[in-house]
Amino acid sequence: MIQQQAFPVEPWVVRETDLDLTRLAQTESAFALSNGHIGLRGNLDEGEPNGLPGTYLGGFWETRPLPSAEAGYGDPEQGQAVVNVTNGKIMRLLVGDAPFDVRYGKLKAHERVLDMRAGVLHRTAEWTSPSHQSVRVRSTRLVSFVQRAIVAIAYEVEPIDDTIQVVIQSELIANEELPSAGADPRAAKTLSTPLVSEDHQVSGTQGLLVHRTSGSGLRLAAAMGHEIHGPPSTTSSSEAFDDVARLVVATPLKLSQTLRIVKYIAYGWSQERSTPALSDQVSAALSEAHATGWDGLLAAQRDYLDEFWERADVEVEGDPELQQATRFGLFHVLQAGSRAEQRAIAAKGLTGSGYDGHAFWDTEAFVLPVLTYTQPQAAGDALRWRHATLDRARKRASQLRLSGAAFPWRTIDGEECSGYWPAGTAAFHINADIAAAVMRYQQAVDDQDFEREVGLELLVETARMWLSLGHRDADGGFRIDGVTGPDEYSAIADNNVYTNLMAQRNLRGAADAVARHGEIASAFGVEPHEAAAWRDAAAAIILPYDEERGVHPQAERFTKHDVWDFQGTKAEQYPLLLHFPYFDLYRKQVVKQADLVLAMHLCSEAFTPEQKLANFDYYEPLTVRDSSLSACTQAVVAAEVGYLELAYAYYREAALVDLDDLEHNVRDGVHIASLAGAWIAAVAGFGGMRDTGGALGFRPQLPDRITRLTFRLCFRGSSFAVEIEASQATYRLLSGDTIEVTHYDTRVPLAPDEPVSLPIAAVSRREPPSQPAGREPAKR
Amino acid sequence: MIQQQAFPVEPWVVRETDLDLTRLAQTESAFALSNGHIGLRGNLDEGEPNGLPGTYLGGFWETRPLPSAEAGYGDPEQGQAVVNVTNGKIMRLLVGDAPFDVRYGKLKAHERVLDMRAGVLHRTAEWTSPSHQSVRVRSTRLVSFVQRAIVAIAYEVEPIDDTIQVVIQSELIANEELPSAGADPRAAKTLSTPLVSEDHQVSGTQGLLVHRTSGSGLRLAAAMGHEIHGPPSTTSSSEAFDDVARLVVATPLKLSQTLRIVKYIAYGWSQERSTPALSDQVSAALSEAHATGWDGLLAAQRDYLDEFWERADVEVEGDPELQQATRFGLFHVLQAGSRAEQRAIAAKGLTGSGYDGHAFWDTEAFVLPVLTYTQPQAAGDALRWRHATLDRARKRASQLRLSGAAFPWRTIDGEECSGYWPAGTAAFHINADIAAAVMRYQQAVDDQDFEREVGLELLVETARMWLSLGHRDADGGFRIDGVTGPDEYSAIADNNVYTNLMAQRNLRGAADAVARHGEIASAFGVEPHEAAAWRDAAAAIILPYDEERGVHPQAERFTKHDVWDFQGTKAEQYPLLLHFPYFDLYRKQVVKQADLVLAMHLCSEAFTPEQKLANFDYYEPLTVRDSSLSACTQAVVAAEVGYLELAYAYYREAALVDLDDLEHNVRDGVHIASLAGAWIAAVAGFGGMRDTGGALGFRPQLPDRITRLTFRLCFRGSSFAVEIEASQATYRLLSGDTIEVTHYDTRVPLAPDEPVSLPIAAVSRREPPSQPAGREPAKR
Repeated sequence: MIQQQAFPVEPWVVRETDLDLTRLAQTESAFALSNGHIGLRGNLDEGEPNGLPGTYLGGFWETRPLPSAEAGYGDPEQGQAVVNVTNGKIMRLLVGDAPFDVRYGKLKAHERVLDMRAGVLHRTAEWTSPSHQSVRVRSTRLVSFVQRAIVAIAYEVEPIDDTIQVVIQSELIANEELPSAGADPRAAKTLSTPLVSEDHQVSGTQGLLVHRTSGSGLRLAAAMGHEIHGPPSTTSSSEAFDDVARLVVATPLKLSQTLRIVKYIAYGWSQERSTPALSDQVSAALSEAHATGWDGLLAAQRDYLDEFWERADVEVEGDPELQQATRFGLFHVLQAGSRAEQRAIAAKGLTGSGYDGHAFWDTEAFVLPVLTYTQPQAAGDALRWRHATLDRARKRASQLRLSGAAFPWRTIDGEECSGYWPAGTAAFHINADIAAAVMRYQQAVDDQDFEREVGLELLVETARMWLSLGHRDADGGFRIDGVTGPDEYSAIADNNVYTNLMAQRNLRGAADAVARHGEIASAFGVEPHEAAAWRDAAAAIILPYDEERGVHPQAERFTKHDVWDFQGTKAEQYPLLLHFPYFDLYRKQVVKQADLVLAMHLCSEAFTPEQKLANFDYYEPLTVRDSSLSACTQAVVAAEVGYLELAYAYYREAALVDLDDLEHNVRDGVHIASLAGAWIAAVAGFGGMRDTGGALGFRPQLPDRITRLTFRLCFRGSSFAVEIEASQATYRLLSGDTIEVTHYDTRVPLAPDEPVSLPIAAVSRREPPSQPAGREPAKR
Repeated sequence: MIQQQAFPVEPWVVRETDLDLTRLAQTESAFALSNGHIGLRGNLDEGEPNGLPGTYLGGFWETRPLPSAEAGYGDPEQGQAVVNVTNGKIMRLLVGDAPFDVRYGKLKAHERVLDMRAGVLHRTAEWTSPSHQSVRVRSTRLVSFVQRAIVAIAYEVEPIDDTIQVVIQSELIANEELPSAGADPRAAKTLSTPLVSEDHQVSGTQGLLVHRTSGSGLRLAAAMGHEIHGPPSTTSSSEAFDDVARLVVATPLKLSQTLRIVKYIAYGWSQERSTPALSDQVSAALSEAHATGWDGLLAAQRDYLDEFWERADVEVEGDPELQQATRFGLFHVLQAGSRAEQRAIAAKGLTGSGYDGHAFWDTEAFVLPVLTYTQPQAAGDALRWRHATLDRARKRASQLRLSGAAFPWRTIDGEECSGYWPAGTAAFHINADIAAAVMRYQQAVDDQDFEREVGLELLVETARMWLSLGHRDADGGFRIDGVTGPDEYSAIADNNVYTNLMAQRNLRGAADAVARHGEIASAFGVEPHEAAAWRDAAAAIILPYDEERGVHPQAERFTKHDVWDFQGTKAEQYPLLLHFPYFDLYRKQVVKQADLVLAMHLCSEAFTPEQKLANFDYYEPLTVRDSSLSACTQAVVAAEVGYLELAYAYYREAALVDLDDLEHNVRDGVHIASLAGAWIAAVAGFGGMRDTGGALGFRPQLPDRITRLTFRLCFRGSSFAVEIEASQATYRLLSGDTIEVTHYDTRVPLAPDEPVSLPIAAVSRREPPSQPAGREPAKR
């Protein structure tokens, strides 16, 4: 998996110094800008060439059929797919009589820089047209974290050698042509012309397009306004049609003259609001952006990010590449979640159309842990979104003949969109993942309103689901049969350890929450005996253990299965799912992604240290990491059992997944959960943070290569930093009231201006187990 | 499940005395005529009204897409669907100025009679047109068993009250409009206009249409010729277009005058042969039919059936309804298989388009046992068809990373067409079912050519598949994990007892065949150590047993699962698959169709009598019989363990499945395997026949209601009858050389003219276990 390094190593920016057209789709994902509400892929300003044009809005989707050769009862017949909406980032440039297109003429210089402190994407290009006229183009693009409906672009062109005639066409374009989807089931299905025109207007330098989708009935307005700075000879005109609105600015430019256009784009969408209401909404947003101005937007963006990094930055000393990748990861997690505000946080954020723009369990299991401690409000909003979909989840449970709520495996708006139930609907653990995220958020933020309004009901309805999903065996054990755990190379198994442990926590957490809020719980119809039944089921839950091998089988009978023929599997046959039938994968010991090992991270207290070591040693040689949701978990548990260098390698893999395109599909969007996993690897891996025992505890240790690791966390309204060196860790309150954490088994009170340094005992290092042939983490 | 009885009870015919338009589709299936090569649904001569127009040809299909919302590696992308081909049975009648259509005017009398000895469908109708002209119409239709390309119809019309003017249009019609398919996954998907015209001709009273399919590239010629017997004033003319060829015969008919048309229709089809070659082929077939003439065809049909009944009839004394139904079943089994000649025998035969016209494991497991002992050549041909598809099965195995051959779960031409792998491809037992059919045929027919040319290779390639599918566990046990047994309400289970026992027999049977034919086996690359490995695996095969409950779990951990909530399931929620998700069915103890119980029938020697009783008692209350492939097996094992009255009820259910439309889907075609199951219930149930121990053995016993049961079997070139009465059984050689069978533990040599009568000991009768609420077999 060793890749050519794509970007030079710099701490706060990701820079591309040369435009490689074969990697366009990948860089479009890496350079995507988003505030969680609006997302723009890093497409070139002029629109073409592109890998995949993309402008996405949180919760804006169109229906698509979910065909089935042999439909089964309960299979969803209709899915949802994220829509590439009206593209407002298009700035076409005509130089003399030649359109600026990097595929023609000569591109003498090209640089793009994603600045993670400024929150902008810069671009500079020097280009000579086929007719030998040279220009310099500069653009800066931002999606505002502060004005969430607003995108802004500053676009500048100047001649290099001689006077030139330039024309800039600044556009809104709907229903762009998209490349057709390949056969990879993880990519998106292409929707052609999903947007139906409802209105188009231009007035002065402003333009507006309103469209709606015919299946999902969502309405969308996109408006643009401009500030034009050019020589006095500059003229402009505008026009609009169903699918395009256009401002045309033309002028001759002498040497040292510049034509600069600042473009503001506002998006609004709704299932309810009328065309006039939406038009007004985006006009108002545009007015506010104009009032703030380009410099004002830039400054607000910087302030927003300064505050973020102050409370959330992770500093990695000793590995500048990992430093950059870790920040890149955090930046994209922030972009995916910060202003999503009760819309789903998708697996790709708003950076690409992979997985049709769906959200999965990844959000609660990998992304929310990061947001909970770095951008708590975003974590709360994400859970409020889940709560808002409770009615659909209740309906789904009822369709599946279950009580309570059954959340969808993949969705945009809360409806189940999974077209393959053994690896979709059967993966009930998502309900416990949501419950765990509720409990984590509640413990970290201590938000009583949240628990009353959102948390309690989510816990109660998921607990009800588990009680109805499991049953008592002849000995009174509580079994959960026929479900699929995190590992998607197994399915429909009995008593998956991860699922059962997480269900146990869900059941207990619900009972605890009911005890805290008896009155509200009564309103949900929870009687005391119901909560007691949850506790009983939790206490009786079956956890299979293979005495012979001294390990936990991932699920019953897993360790009885044939071991996958790793030696006979060629490198190009990974990911296995594209080269072997599920039939074969399911019946063998081969693990796509951490499953039992994830249980050991998230339910750490359920395993003895000896079990953790034995289990890790057993599963490591079976785990192929065909999912990006694995490396970070392996990092965490490897660190805990003493394989620090292996943990380091996995941390790097999780962090570099997209910068190095380790999964070969960053074209479809970045892997938000794996990027979040980089943070998890740092904080839960080398910081040893565990947050499920009622308190926040740390057991820090560093691998050789990292000389110092500092991370910052928000906890109960306070903020603190943990600075880890080889032989000591220093805990420092950054803001807020005194809080308490633990360092190994020592309680550490953190008071203002009273940093505490505590020693780290050297661990005995072991030789780690090996991975399947060819599936070792990339080593430096 | 108690139904209004549809047909009066008569021993040799099925008679409908009144035309019920709401049951048209059902009667079209019941009255379907076929020789295994050509099948006609019992559509009314005039074409309309109809439930489902249907003319089918063995192995004539068109491709259809198998769409998938989330495709997996190895999922077939293209399926096959039987085509409703050119309809030659259309005889439209104009009476005065009114078309004869039973929906208009007044139908004063209408009778249809399926004569199972003559092999024809008779119809008589008396009808008064809306303009008050009355006619009598008589038709007789046959699909010749002797001239397999030929259908013949005698159609007669006469006035009742007064002179009438009649016009008969005798047609060939291609691309008939079909009703659209409903949501039931067991019905067929509709192909619209699958036939592309290639040629059309008329000449005199002959007509010809040639078409081909665009996807499967099959070419089809249908030709018709006529004999016209009418008053001298009778005129005729003909015309042809792309999709219709028409002979128009017109005449006034006075009282006592008759217009009679004999129509011969010939079909030919091929993937290879050209349009002229196929046209000539059907012309030649027509000429032969003309030469034979109507009376000649009728006589040959009668002779063919006389011979069949002589060697195959089952006489049931004491239950005339069951007598009729048993013969109806045998007749349809004969129709499905007799002249199929190396085409698949489909689940619906050629009586409807249900299951897209696919053949499944039913053929080998239920239909071939009947044909092997009643029409052995047809059983041999069916296995030769499987053999002809070996290359595809080898390719499929290789795609699934297995050795040898993996036969398709459902197919027309040998390609896997299963769109849902957990209940398709994973059901590997089909390979052992084929092997068992080979061994049964070989033992019963002792056909050395067959074994050398067909049987050995089928056994070797399936044994190879099993060896590669299973693996050795730590203790050396041979496990077969992650497969689906016969019961489709479980899937992807480990060590399904049925599968493992059948695989064991397959492995041993292959090793035995290799020992008999070392030289041929060497040509297939079988080395002695390979056969030894098969024997070793067979000896080591795992058969799970639940010591606690004293029963065999259907597959590992089955008995640990929650029992289905039968009390909470309403009658209208059956079949469960249409009302509950597979997810829920798979994880609970609920059995769609005999699985472990089928193992006890087919691998009788693997269970002690005590185990059989305990197992039957355990599975009976779990078995809902949502498949028609269950009642006969439950009949067989119920009889063996002493539940004779229950066995009788199941025998009746299997036999009456279509006459009483017990599954509510006979509209899509009759259930050939269940009809075959009626014979199995009689012969293996009350005859107690077992044929897997190296000899043919009987353990006859009768239920109260049946006073005498006589069946006839072919065995090694001889033919014999078993006549069972309450206290004795008489064995009688009918033809051929002396053979030996066993009666209980007594050897019975059967020599010409030396019937042997042996006593039957009274069995102690037990109260049988109950079925799930509402799923009791229909009682009389």
